[in-house]
Amino acid sequence: MRNFDEKDITDAVISRLANSPSPRAKHISASLIRHLHDFVREIEPSQSEWEQAIDFLTRTGQMCSSTRQEFILLSDALGVSTLVDAINHRLPSTATETTVMGPFYVEHAPEVPSGSRIAGPAEGPALLIEGSVRSVDGQPLGSATVDIWHADEAGFYDVQKDDVNLSGRARVRTDAHGMFWVIGAVPAAYPIPNDGPVGRMLEAQGRHPFRPAHVHFMVSAPGHETLVTHLFLADSDHLDSDVVFGVKDSLIEVLGTAAPGTTSYGATVETSTPVLRRDFVLGKALSGAAARRPHPQALY
Amino acid sequence: MRNFDEKDITDAVISRLANSPSPRAKHISASLIRHLHDFVREIEPSQSEWEQAIDFLTRTGQMCSSTRQEFILLSDALGVSTLVDAINHRLPSTATETTVMGPFYVEHAPEVPSGSRIAGPAEGPALLIEGSVRSVDGQPLGSATVDIWHADEAGFYDVQKDDVNLSGRARVRTDAHGMFWVIGAVPAAYPIPNDGPVGRMLEAQGRHPFRPAHVHFMVSAPGHETLVTHLFLADSDHLDSDVVFGVKDSLIEVLGTAAPGTTSYGATVETSTPVLRRDFVLGKALSGAAARRPHPQALY
Repeated sequence: MRNFDEKDITDAVISRLANSPSPRAKHISASLIRHLHDFVREIEPSQSEWEQAIDFLTRTGQMCSSTRQEFILLSDALGVSTLVDAINHRLPSTATETTVMGPFYVEHAPEVPSGSRIAGPAEGPALLIEGSVRSVDGQPLGSATVDIWHADEAGFYDVQKDDVNLSGRARVRTDAHGMFWVIGAVPAAYPIPNDGPVGRMLEAQGRHPFRPAHVHFMVSAPGHETLVTHLFLADSDHLDSDVVFGVKDSLIEVLGTAAPGTTSYGATVETSTPVLRRDFVLGKALSGAAARRPHPQALY
Repeated sequence: MRNFDEKDITDAVISRLANSPSPRAKHISASLIRHLHDFVREIEPSQSEWEQAIDFLTRTGQMCSSTRQEFILLSDALGVSTLVDAINHRLPSTATETTVMGPFYVEHAPEVPSGSRIAGPAEGPALLIEGSVRSVDGQPLGSATVDIWHADEAGFYDVQKDDVNLSGRARVRTDAHGMFWVIGAVPAAYPIPNDGPVGRMLEAQGRHPFRPAHVHFMVSAPGHETLVTHLFLADSDHLDSDVVFGVKDSLIEVLGTAAPGTTSYGATVETSTPVLRRDFVLGKALSGAAARRPHPQALY
């Protein structure tokens, strides 16, 4: 096969997939080639624009480090992360709604006991974060893992700062009644990191880089779908223009006030403290798109 | 705007482009979002597959260095480079046909006088590379710039080797009659670098990584479209399955033999020498898609 023109090149590339050992990789590749070529035919890039695209992708990759994931930011800002999340959480459910993971999750954050202070005064005014985890059938899920991470009052996550200490971040386990609590800090709305290629893209698109104030949660328990979500603060700016399209009404919470003493979740505070409270509900495992189809360990 | 589902997310993201200061960036972004979302809806990636895609793109960016451009390899292997080349060279023309740039071009290669030896015995048997440059109206183009780069007999370019010397690479200028010549080496067919993400992709797609033997040329002259092309060796393997889809019949040359003495191009050889010869024809400037539309310096 030779002499490809702008029409027959697409079928030519797809025909090269004939001997793929992986039906899934073959399907994804063929779809990628078709849609990518359609995109190129639609925009008719000049050679210079193609070079700019190569450079943009290269800079995006090279901006990534152990504490910065520029391709996740790109996926988030283009609405792809929200789309993938929606595809994987299709079934009507009484489970807590999901939203995007974002780029600031840290694997293997240290586990702390419930009741720990996970952010100090430097991070902002104390915020009691308390809640419970149960299954869709109402059963409390003890020993469930709850990862929590949030920005500080200036809008920065621990991993964006120079010091190496984790803060505003913890993993706790629910007690036998499915309850947990920690003391964090009231987070601020913030711009996603915009000193890199994604920031330049947002400028070219005429968009602001802000997310409304929120706290991230990842909740997992055996036999249940892992829940990746946020709770948004009801009084925050940008709820209607979140740069990563993550806001759902069901995830917006008005902060309450915990009076001195012990709350019904077992939390103890000495002074009146703002509280973010949620009873999380996990769906049973095997309900998402991921589970409906086995997927290989690594495609490429 | 909140509560996006897998159908309305696309229009929501596109609506955020309303204030883009650049009509071209807005058009490209809207098209990218639409095609990218269609791709995602078609393949329905699991969260794990989305993570693999993020990781693949990140590794691709991080593989790039001053001597390795993995995103160009990706564009080449997916047929995108050939498609962009076709879109930018649409008009029927008697000019020499174009093909892809590839990832091994080096900007600002040192200029050498015509007649220079640009590859030594270590690179393989000597190859006389001679030719001329003229305009579509037949006028010889003196002082045209001819960039030449080729792999050695083992299939490697200079920039893939540990030593820092350029070899198999030169920039020469045509003389008053539009002629040039250098002594290079007979290049071998070779696999594109396949120790990175693109190599893994080719494996998953069941494809070989080979390109047929060829010599790259980039020819430019004032008032003319710059020509980026190769000449392929007619006796090479893989002419019908070039991994980057670059082969065109008009670019295949049978090597000749230059007898001792001086050729009609002014080249002098002391012994019988294989010769790759081409009279390049450049189109007048302003004939491609690039010129039909002004484009901004930098989109993102």
